[in-house]
Amino acid sequence: MSAVVVRAMFRSHPDKPPHSEIMSRCIDACFDCVETCTACADACLSERDVGDLVACIRLNLDCAAVCGATGSIMSRSNKAGHPQLLEAHLANCIAFCRACADECDAHGDLHQHCAICAKTCRACAKACNAMLEAMRLPA
Amino acid sequence: MSAVVVRAMFRSHPDKPPHSEIMSRCIDACFDCVETCTACADACLSERDVGDLVACIRLNLDCAAVCGATGSIMSRSNKAGHPQLLEAHLANCIAFCRACADECDAHGDLHQHCAICAKTCRACAKACNAMLEAMRLPA
Amino acid sequence: MSAVVVRAMFRSHPDKPPHSEIMSRCIDACFDCVETCTACADACLSERDVGDLVACIRLNLDCAAVCGATGSIMSRSNKAGHPQLLEAHLANCIAFCRACADECDAHGDLHQHCAICAKTCRACAKACNAMLEAMRLPA
Amino acid sequence: MSAVVVRAMFRSHPDKPPHSEIMSRCIDACFDCVETCTACADACLSERDVGDLVACIRLNLDCAAVCGATGSIMSRSNKAGHPQLLEAHLANCIAFCRACADECDAHGDLHQHCAICAKTCRACAKACNAMLEAMRLPA
Repeated sequence: MSAVVVRAMFRSHPDKPPHSEIMSRCIDACFDCVETCTACADACLSERDVGDLVACIRLNLDCAAVCGATGSIMSRSNKAGHPQLLEAHLANCIAFCRACADECDAHGDLHQHCAICAKTCRACAKACNAMLEAMRLPA
Repeated sequence: MSAVVVRAMFRSHPDKPPHSEIMSRCIDACFDCVETCTACADACLSERDVGDLVACIRLNLDCAAVCGATGSIMSRSNKAGHPQLLEAHLANCIAFCRACADECDAHGDLHQHCAICAKTCRACAKACNAMLEAMRLPA
Repeated sequence: MSAVVVRAMFRSHPDKPPHSEIMSRCIDACFDCVETCTACADACLSERDVGDLVACIRLNLDCAAVCGATGSIMSRSNKAGHPQLLEAHLANCIAFCRACADECDAHGDLHQHCAICAKTCRACAKACNAMLEAMRLPA
Repeated sequence: MSAVVVRAMFRSHPDKPPHSEIMSRCIDACFDCVETCTACADACLSERDVGDLVACIRLNLDCAAVCGATGSIMSRSNKAGHPQLLEAHLANCIAFCRACADECDAHGDLHQHCAICAKTCRACAKACNAMLEAMRLPA
């Protein structure tokens, strides 16, 4: 989804969540990652060397699971008193995205879907990091 | 995510799934719907008249659950012999999207997030319908 | 989870949903199926003949996605006016469970995790069917 | 699901994952938590004082999202070289379970579904902690 629509959603949210610009981009990056990792796992399953891609498939599925949770948790992030939960989850999500990107990059020259997936995972890690930094700034 | 990236994923998928153009747009519309419905449910929770929005919140969460399943199932749609599973699931998904859109539209003038959500749900129903029609065409 | 706990949850639900006994068993069967299909997909990925199990892995992941959606939608099933959505979704879920069970059974003698998974999928289809029948009875 | 079935799945997993007894119980506790938190969120939505339960509903949905991810990630936990990802995710999951349990306990005397949910969340935190400790032991 264009982050524009997510941003419009948050502009009409009664709580006007802080960092809504950065948050919209982060939520969007998370669901992009769900989409790409799910598609990459399936493309790997169809490769002739699927036996060599098992670690990649597992990380793809893990990364999709974590990023889906991150996207939905962040959409509910106006939880007075629990910013530390979102911060810990974001740090965790970044670790999965980076591990998946590293794994995909390791054979990105053989499988273009892995190269694309690595790029999307890194973009998600970056967006999560920007959100983390925004949360840690003094209001 | 831009449907462009999803399409690039499927172009590098070893099976070259048929209808990949329509399918990419449909997968993208499904995850847009997950994103918007999740955000709409949360915005409704923050409205002063939350007690009047309970049916909307439930349909938002249902629609997010179904569209998330549709997006991931469609990414694995190259299941020789099981097109009827995807067809039935798509028909089901369309029904949830339309019910959620109708509910959101019913108070879209009061809550802009509901108006935006209704639009995204209808776009998802339309994309699922286009996919259904493509699958039913003789190859 | 023991269906006993789910049932206790619904007994303390303000709406006292009808069919709460059958519904509790069905929700429980759905999450059992998520659990088993996810584990079966992973066990298949570790088999030496993973290349022959790709269709099974895909159906496992699809069945887990659909059953997870069913379990959460049914937990919100007190949606006045929308029983037809749950009915259509249940019929859909039964189709995925049966397809996954058939696929798993086809090599259940080679891989015990597939035999166990087939049994869990059939139990879920049966529980969904019991729920469907209860909903269709005159109140 | 009875942890007995999950254990049987892992006994037939080609990799024979270590700690499979503790892991089976932990996966089972995670999906119990998904089930209970989803049902508690819905019961809260039907309470007359829903406006006072918004924080609880959000934590219920967050906890369900995180525990669902934990359950599926742990089912793929035989990821040589990435135990630190599972460890970080488990620590994160424990934090969400405890926050949700605390919130639910705060009004468990008013709403029995919250009291039941708090208990399930604490059981999940405990099972995740046992898994963490098992992973940290020298092999």
